[in-house]
Amino acid sequence: MLMNDVITVVDLVATAVFAISGALAAAQGRHDILGFILFGTITGIGGGTLRDLLLGTDAVFWFTRTEYLWICVAASVATWFMAPLFDSISRVLLWADAVGLALFSVLGAVKALQFDAPPIVAVGMGVMTATFGSMIRDTLLNKEPVLLGPEIYVSAALLGAASYTALHPFTEWALPISIALAFGLRACAILFDLRLPKYGPAENDQS
Amino acid sequence: MLMNDVITVVDLVATAVFAISGALAAAQGRHDILGFILFGTITGIGGGTLRDLLLGTDAVFWFTRTEYLWICVAASVATWFMAPLFDSISRVLLWADAVGLALFSVLGAVKALQFDAPPIVAVGMGVMTATFGSMIRDTLLNKEPVLLGPEIYVSAALLGAASYTALHPFTEWALPISIALAFGLRACAILFDLRLPKYGPAENDQS
Amino acid sequence: MLMNDVITVVDLVATAVFAISGALAAAQGRHDILGFILFGTITGIGGGTLRDLLLGTDAVFWFTRTEYLWICVAASVATWFMAPLFDSISRVLLWADAVGLALFSVLGAVKALQFDAPPIVAVGMGVMTATFGSMIRDTLLNKEPVLLGPEIYVSAALLGAASYTALHPFTEWALPISIALAFGLRACAILFDLRLPKYGPAENDQS
Repeated sequence: MLMNDVITVVDLVATAVFAISGALAAAQGRHDILGFILFGTITGIGGGTLRDLLLGTDAVFWFTRTEYLWICVAASVATWFMAPLFDSISRVLLWADAVGLALFSVLGAVKALQFDAPPIVAVGMGVMTATFGSMIRDTLLNKEPVLLGPEIYVSAALLGAASYTALHPFTEWALPISIALAFGLRACAILFDLRLPKYGPAENDQS
Repeated sequence: MLMNDVITVVDLVATAVFAISGALAAAQGRHDILGFILFGTITGIGGGTLRDLLLGTDAVFWFTRTEYLWICVAASVATWFMAPLFDSISRVLLWADAVGLALFSVLGAVKALQFDAPPIVAVGMGVMTATFGSMIRDTLLNKEPVLLGPEIYVSAALLGAASYTALHPFTEWALPISIALAFGLRACAILFDLRLPKYGPAENDQS
Repeated sequence: MLMNDVITVVDLVATAVFAISGALAAAQGRHDILGFILFGTITGIGGGTLRDLLLGTDAVFWFTRTEYLWICVAASVATWFMAPLFDSISRVLLWADAVGLALFSVLGAVKALQFDAPPIVAVGMGVMTATFGSMIRDTLLNKEPVLLGPEIYVSAALLGAASYTALHPFTEWALPISIALAFGLRACAILFDLRLPKYGPAENDQS
């Protein structure tokens, strides 16, 4: 069916984009090419794998659909050769991560709704699919997780997943609209340094 | 059935208490309100989610019983407004964590035994359910995991899970007794700084 | 059947060896005996547990086969008493980890192939089974993950899993040959400080 084809293509693109972000993080840590492939693959399929485990699917999606693995390997290897061409790896990583975030937050909700998930579960799955891969990537590489950074990040994933969950019964354009909303919010957050108010009161005790 | 109702209530209380501890940890890291909700939810349902994955249940418990998610969100938001009222967040966090530890160590064993788990598996599931949520919370927030702290922590979870596993065939009071034992041991550990002997010999090499 | 008996024995040995490496890591962190058991068990069964979750087996292997848990407990307790006898804990840990790596990389592929996994999935499962336990161990103990160390590590797991996947239709000796290849490569890497070329270009931006 046409809609499912669109979703599959978007899913593969999101996987490749996140794999590139994982490989770029490996570049920052100056790892070897297998490190690129390892972090590219973990970041690319990590979120969707957790989603499948929580939904209780039989086996994870990449068990039968190995093209997801190949695309992670290919994107990671390509990054190894392309990364030197970029002036600022951290800037490219930031934007690759933003694109992946927007795509996966909506796709996570799509997949959960296909399993008849209640709305709050669909939204939660969207946020989780979008953030889990980068969370492992950053934890393993001992970087400050990007989702704990000061700018709006989780909010963008939340907006993407929630708007798709709210809109999909009403319009066929729910997919592109919610992706655009999530990406737009994250892009604004990066460009204009948008942030939610932090927890404020003076904190006197350590740990 | 009455017993199951009691278990459900205790389970919801434990989830709320752990969610509060997660939100308090987010307060220490000065995150925004979505950070509170994220860490509250991860800490509140993390242990039970891992338990369900390992037991091979069809889908995780909060897929159909969304009240667990709502209670995490509500507890996290409440913590955002209440936290400034406390003198010492780290002290409240310590005790909330102790209550959650006692409740979840026993509930993890209860659920595993409902799946006919052998005793060692039931005990292990109890320890895991009680410690996994706080383990992720502390790892993601880059804090020293509380379960690696010097005072007795894993021992208290072990006592709760093991005493329930041992007592439940013999008495209907197994649930409150084991919760009291686990909480009592952890409370004594906090108050009197109880600890097991550390590994002692001089260690000359680094890592 | 004979072959399955051999695999079971090798699997138990690998579990014990990885449990010892987990307990030794706890010794370096000067934890108490429950910390030894906790990290020994996580490291011993962590990789195989993730593999089972991803393969979508009903319950994890140690739910019914509790001997895997007992062997982790026994190996951890034994390490508590034996560790002081070693001159250099980090050296023993390095070699125990190398043996576990070689055994589990091949066994992960064996189990995946029993589930009719495609070759790339079998190789990926082998690498994951071999590296996941030590990855959690090091992350929780806040050590630099050994798989991010400079010498060849992931490559050895890859060699073990790939050579078994390639050889097993052709020879009954696929199991010992691939284990020897993986261990040989890792041993050479430790002894002769073999490493793959790191990502090279000057990197001007921080994170």
